[in-house]
Amino acid sequence: MDGALYLGVDGGGTGCRARLEDAAGTVLGQGIAGPAATRFGIEASWQAIETAARHAIAEAGLDAAQVGCIRAGVGVAGIGRKGARAALEAIRHPYASIAFTSDAMIACLGAHGGRDGGIVIVGTGTCAIGRIGGREMKFGGYGFPISDEGSGAYLGLRALQHSLRAHDGREGGSVLTRELMARFQDDPAEVVLWMDRSTATDYATFAPLVLRQADQGDAVARQVVQDGAEHVNGLVRALLAEGAPRVSLIGGLASAMEAWLAPDVRRRLSPTLGDAVTGALALAGRR
Amino acid sequence: MDGALYLGVDGGGTGCRARLEDAAGTVLGQGIAGPAATRFGIEASWQAIETAARHAIAEAGLDAAQVGCIRAGVGVAGIGRKGARAALEAIRHPYASIAFTSDAMIACLGAHGGRDGGIVIVGTGTCAIGRIGGREMKFGGYGFPISDEGSGAYLGLRALQHSLRAHDGREGGSVLTRELMARFQDDPAEVVLWMDRSTATDYATFAPLVLRQADQGDAVARQVVQDGAEHVNGLVRALLAEGAPRVSLIGGLASAMEAWLAPDVRRRLSPTLGDAVTGALALAGRR
Repeated sequence: MDGALYLGVDGGGTGCRARLEDAAGTVLGQGIAGPAATRFGIEASWQAIETAARHAIAEAGLDAAQVGCIRAGVGVAGIGRKGARAALEAIRHPYASIAFTSDAMIACLGAHGGRDGGIVIVGTGTCAIGRIGGREMKFGGYGFPISDEGSGAYLGLRALQHSLRAHDGREGGSVLTRELMARFQDDPAEVVLWMDRSTATDYATFAPLVLRQADQGDAVARQVVQDGAEHVNGLVRALLAEGAPRVSLIGGLASAMEAWLAPDVRRRLSPTLGDAVTGALALAGRR
Repeated sequence: MDGALYLGVDGGGTGCRARLEDAAGTVLGQGIAGPAATRFGIEASWQAIETAARHAIAEAGLDAAQVGCIRAGVGVAGIGRKGARAALEAIRHPYASIAFTSDAMIACLGAHGGRDGGIVIVGTGTCAIGRIGGREMKFGGYGFPISDEGSGAYLGLRALQHSLRAHDGREGGSVLTRELMARFQDDPAEVVLWMDRSTATDYATFAPLVLRQADQGDAVARQVVQDGAEHVNGLVRALLAEGAPRVSLIGGLASAMEAWLAPDVRRRLSPTLGDAVTGALALAGRR
């Protein structure tokens, strides 16, 4: 265990993962913890990062001197919030160094082996992130409903809008619209009640149904997914136009959505080389 | 002041208006009060109705015996909520009779002189309401963002979505998108902060700007308004397809939006004959 030690932490909105490696990439220890998103407060965010890191360090059996040699890289969800980055950088830590960036940026670094490139995240939300020639860039991802076109939340909202119109008889229905309304006992009043307490995550729960029906040829589902895919095309093209040497699609809906993208866009996508924790290790300085 | 007395109350979400008339339509007294929407509770709703009615009765100088002869008609915002109508009908009142319906239905009755017809409301939300051959019907109006296409809130959301994409360079901008982003210091983070605390009413504040820019030929604004107008066309056509002998457009954005409707739809619209209180008086039985 001589030489440099690297700690990578993926501090996401649903959980935090840490991995400790040596310069050769041998995994020495791993740890997990709860959400590290800054919207729960900087204190809670750092608690999650520290907990995941402590478990990884304990598994590796490091002493204090060795901990002092660790170079850490951490991606944090919501680091763009006002003052969040400065607050995190001001926290005392036991490592040789620590570098912070967004959880999306470490996913980008991981996807491209620490080198330049871009990613389009297609999950509950959508967002394009890139690092090209030292410049960092971001397109979309401002949140639902003002942004995140083509995301799971977006597909779910569009499908519900069509379902209500079809229920009224204002447009033609389909298997999708009938199946969606059946989840609300065919009662628009139930949809209204549901909406009053629903977030982007709730809307996104309908996305797998929409994508499945689209795959089976349902006319309404195809229309919703094709419109969403057009927005994802736009996000990929924005990165390519900036000169991204590689662009990867990631996120829970990436593989399902990829089939709907324009042929020229699909052809120019690259497979991911590593995960977000790998990206955090690259941020920490591991080559 | 012999003969029947009629009390009409428009219990809307922003305020409550009452008017007392005799059988000939002579106005005997008027009153106003705060919002009567059931979302503030049935008690508060009835309080507003009673306050407005009391002022109208006081202005007319009626004694208790005369009050006992009043036939009342009341339109209440949110009467469709579970149990609201039954709770209102169970309340003790001093009148000869009282009839309740929605605030939208009295607007419909008022627009068509108490006879059959339909209205399409275009304001913060959109909704179509009709009474045709004794049947009552409703299309849309399930709330923002799952419904209310073509409304002020809808125009505002669409304009913001385009503005953020134009700000990113993902699509072409216009005077509208630049003017909207300027309201947020050209900073998407400010839009995100705004969104976190915004309701349909807040989105609708951008609608006058969108309609003005559309009128001046702004390409993005025209696209947003034309798409919205297509949904309003759909609401009007839904009522016509049900056999509505007359359809009127009402609401704060009705006149601005009317210019964008399809020629065949515009041609088939009828002017309103009376206001919502007139509709409430018709509900009470005044001819």
